[in-house]
Formats: sequence, C-alpha cells, structure tokens
Amino acid sequence: MSTRIGILGYGNLGRGVECAIRQNDDMELAAVFTRRDPASVSILTQTAQVCSVKDLADWKDKIDVMIICGGSATDLPKQTPECVKLFNVIDSFDTHARIPEHFANVDAAAKESGHIGIISVGWDPGMFSLNRLYANAILPEGSDYTFWGKGVSQGHSDAIRRIEGVKNAKQYTIPVESALEAVRNGENPELTTRQKHTRECFVVLEEGADAAKVEDEIKTMPNYFADYDTTVHFISEEELLKNHSGIPHGGFVLRSGVTGWEKEHKHLIEYRLKLDSNPEFTASVLVAYARAAHRLAAEGQKGCRSVFDIAPAYLSAKSGEELRASML
Amino acid sequence: MSTRIGILGYGNLGRGVECAIRQNDDMELAAVFTRRDPASVSILTQTAQVCSVKDLADWKDKIDVMIICGGSATDLPKQTPECVKLFNVIDSFDTHARIPEHFANVDAAAKESGHIGIISVGWDPGMFSLNRLYANAILPEGSDYTFWGKGVSQGHSDAIRRIEGVKNAKQYTIPVESALEAVRNGENPELTTRQKHTRECFVVLEEGADAAKVEDEIKTMPNYFADYDTTVHFISEEELLKNHSGIPHGGFVLRSGVTGWEKEHKHLIEYRLKLDSNPEFTASVLVAYARAAHRLAAEGQKGCRSVFDIAPAYLSAKSGEELRASML
Repeated sequence: MSTRIGILGYGNLGRGVECAIRQNDDMELAAVFTRRDPASVSILTQTAQVCSVKDLADWKDKIDVMIICGGSATDLPKQTPECVKLFNVIDSFDTHARIPEHFANVDAAAKESGHIGIISVGWDPGMFSLNRLYANAILPEGSDYTFWGKGVSQGHSDAIRRIEGVKNAKQYTIPVESALEAVRNGENPELTTRQKHTRECFVVLEEGADAAKVEDEIKTMPNYFADYDTTVHFISEEELLKNHSGIPHGGFVLRSGVTGWEKEHKHLIEYRLKLDSNPEFTASVLVAYARAAHRLAAEGQKGCRSVFDIAPAYLSAKSGEELRASML
Repeated sequence: MSTRIGILGYGNLGRGVECAIRQNDDMELAAVFTRRDPASVSILTQTAQVCSVKDLADWKDKIDVMIICGGSATDLPKQTPECVKLFNVIDSFDTHARIPEHFANVDAAAKESGHIGIISVGWDPGMFSLNRLYANAILPEGSDYTFWGKGVSQGHSDAIRRIEGVKNAKQYTIPVESALEAVRNGENPELTTRQKHTRECFVVLEEGADAAKVEDEIKTMPNYFADYDTTVHFISEEELLKNHSGIPHGGFVLRSGVTGWEKEHKHLIEYRLKLDSNPEFTASVLVAYARAAHRLAAEGQKGCRSVFDIAPAYLSAKSGEELRASML
C-alpha cells in the first residue's frame, strides 16, 4: 500500500518531511501547500506540486495523509481540526499543557468527518513520551528524569535576539553530566532546574552595543535564563554562521526504579537521542506515523490518536511476519 | 478493572512475577501452579493458593491471565499452546529463530479457544525488539547494534559447570566500551563477535583439579568462548557466593542513521537497560503485558500477539486522559 502524502507548510519541518519521504519506498509526496505565493516556493521533489492552502479541498481524494508542519502556538490549534475535516492528518503539536484540549478538538472533528488524526508526534512529545510510558508501566515504583540537549533552543535564541543591541544569537541547552551520572547510579537525586541543565549563548552584537549590559540582561531574564547557570560568548557574525548554523538537539529519558519483594533490586531504563537535525528527525517520526494513519484509516478507524494509541507494527513498512522474523 | 493472575512455574521468573504483582494495585495473584508437590512449595503471597499443574482446568474462570514462567527450550513450545486453550496467556519465549513457529502454534490454539496469547515478552525479545522496530521505522537508512551486559549469562555459566574439575562458576558478558563509543560517534563500525563483547568467568575448582587445563577448556570451547576474549578467575566458593550470587544483566540497542536530501545529517537512537535482577525485570514486563492481554480479551480480541502488536497505552493502569495529561 503506497501512501500519498501532502505537506502543509514548507519551513524546516516541511522540508524535513520531504526528505524523509524520499527515504521510504512506500511513500510518495503529492503536493506541498503554502500560505505564500506557490510560484515563489521551490521544492526538491520534481514529481510533486506546490499549491496554495486555499486549494486544499481540491485534493481531498488525492492525498492519503496530510502532514501539518505549522507552529504549535497559533497554527496547529486551528489547522489540525480544520484539516482533519478533509484528510487523515499528523501534527507535531508540542505545547504539553494544551494537549488534552487539542486532542478533544481534533477528536470531535475527526469523528465527524471519518478521518484519523494523530497529534503530538515527534520526539518530545513523541518518542520521549513513549519511553516515559513504557518505563512507568514496567517499573511502577521509581523516578522519571528528562534531560534535553545538547541542542539549540529556538525559543531561547529568539529571546536573546529580542534584547536591544543583539544582532544575532544561538542558545544551546546542555544537560549537566554529573546529574545524569547520579541518575544512572541509582541515587534518585532530587534535581533543581539549575542542577539539570546549563545554558550556553553565542551572541553577535550590533555595532556600539554594551556587551556587559547585554550579558546581564541575558543572565537575569526570568524563566528563560535566571534559574540556570548561563555562559555568554560574544562572537562575530561570520563565526556564528560558520560554527553555529546547525539545528542539533537530543536528550535523555531515564527511569530509575525498584523491584523485589522488599524492593531490593534497582533498575535503570535510559533512552537517548543525539540528533544532527532536530527538524529532520521530527519529520522522520511524522512520516512513520503517517504510514500508521493510512493503515488505521484503511481499517475504518476514525478519531484522534496519540503515539500512545498506535501499535508499533503500524509504523513499519514490513509485514508482521517479516517483523517477527527479523526484529523480535 | 482488576486482573486475576495465575503463575505457571515457580522459579526465579515466577517469583519475580509474584513480586511485580505486589507493585501493581490493579493486579492480584490468584494461584501459582507447579509440577512439584504443591505442599512442598511455599510462596510469598498469603492470599494466593499453590496448586498442581494437573488442576489448571479447574481455574478456567477464576484467572484472567496466566503468566507462563517455563523455559524456552522445552517448556514453552508445549505449555503456551496448551494453556491458551484455557486462559489468556503471556510468555517470555526467547529462542529468536523459533519465534515464527511458536507464534503460529499459539495463534491457531488461541483463535480456536477465543483467547489472547502474547509471546516473547521481556527485554530481549521484548523491550529491545520494540526499540529496534521504532528506530528502524524512524530511520530507514542506518545500522543496528545490540550489545548485552554487563550481565550474567546462565547458559555460559552452565557450560563452564559441565567441565570436569569445575565445582561452580559464573560468567559475565561485557560489552566492549570502545565499540559502543564508535557506534555513538556515528562511525558505523562493522564489528566482529570478538570486538563487541568480552567474557569474564569466575570459577570454583574441585579439589585437585588442574586449573590450567580447565582454563584452556573454557577459552577454546566452540560457540561459547572460542570467538571471544575470555578472562578466567579462579576463586573460592565463599567468594563466589559472596560477590557473584546476583543475576544482573542489561545491554544497549542502538541505531545510527542518516536524514536529509543528501543524507547529510547523522542521528543516534540509544536504548539502555541496567538491571540488578534479570528475572525480576523480565517479570515486570510480563505483568505490564498481562494488563494489556486482559484488556484486549475484554474487547473480544483473540489470537497471538507480540509486543509489536500492542498499543503502548494498554500497558498502563492509567486512562488515556491521564496518560495524555501526564506523560505525553
């Protein structure tokens, strides 16, 4: 069963989806939908079309799964429930606190239109969430830890760029190695925000800007930096572009738990991601779940799902027999 | 929904299941079934009964899921297809090459009797298999690596004990740290058996035994040791009991892959287990899947399943709403 994919929104994530489709023989990119003038958007896939979001409805029967590549703040809360009226959809909605509300909205629209919508797909939420769930189900008595990085936080980089005198900036979130080791050693540490991550900033100043003032503004910024040990490096724009233009990320999900009649045995479950490209990895997860969405829809299922609701076999192009023979 | 569990076979694994049930409020141990004289078997749970395997059929309506704790070589190929005629069942069948055959046998019997059977549950096969599947679905272009240890291999310890002059022995399988690091660095190494693991043996000799001869027999033993760098330590029985009576294990599943239009970005997915007690951890996985089996059966499903076929949410005592609010 080949799956015809649509991409809604062609930024870093949309381009990542396009690349991921190329790596999966049973996937085919049908069209990219953009809010921009389609003539101004050039894509990599020769066989696919670029269309206006206004023409989405024309593609109702020509696309099996629409992968929605908008932002979580304002795009997805509107786009996903709208889009699921026409298509099976996948999104990467990542505002953790608003997931229940988003799920309810997508579920209602999906049930009415008879489609499948899988939300909050990616790595956190996504693969990290799965690992939290599996580890908690296996070790009901224990402690959970999530560390992020080393990686670029777009939100923190943006926050620095909004400071007066800053021309450009990149911020890395870095897990504290000694905290990770304490968890791995089964010490069950209680860790403050400051003890879990450090923040490293590479900043390009506007001409004549006051470096000391900028550094102070960064380090004392509430929520973003004040609760962390933060290092600020001032560098040239050339150096920023040369050494800090990638979008790496990753992190660790750990669960430390006990078993035994007297809880005498310790266990550690650790899941780690080390990613050169945050958007391309997220896109790769989205495409695997698009395969699942197509299959679930073909079975006649409808409504909203999360990664928790999808049996792993649905993600693979291999059959059940092949999977049992090769991977079990 | 509370789940009444039966345990078939009361060795290390069966006792581990008993301990795991105690950690899950929605699980209850109904009875332990043994091939021994029930009067000779004492269990930890005051409220549960000890019964003869001959009386299994009497429990048909008093047990929701039977967890079969026999060995893969001779017990499970017979017990699981037999048992699924009466109960929903879980086993930890771990002879990878014979899984397709075992699956088919259990599937036929389960479909006929209207029960659910989940086979090959544990950590390898089990959690390691899941991680291989997820990682392959996300990164279709890449390499897989599985390392085991540091941990006790029962099979290798037994092989040493069969050598003339050996009174007792314990064998540890140890992953080679430099090989692990090469994988983590994205070097995609091709690793021989010798490059992946070393083997460390602690041996107690019979009085008057020839140490050099025993060491040579161990190191040259085909399949078990000849292809590995093996270290042999001769110790006293007291030291063996004091320092080597645990059953720790664990290991690593890694996938190193690429994304991007020109495959320009590298990614690493790593899953690690560090277990004080191999049987108790395996038992904890079995109990989580027993919860899933009970739910699937309550939905009217029947037939054989593996961990690949079970949506993660079925493993957790929490509802879908709770899971989305707390773990997604």
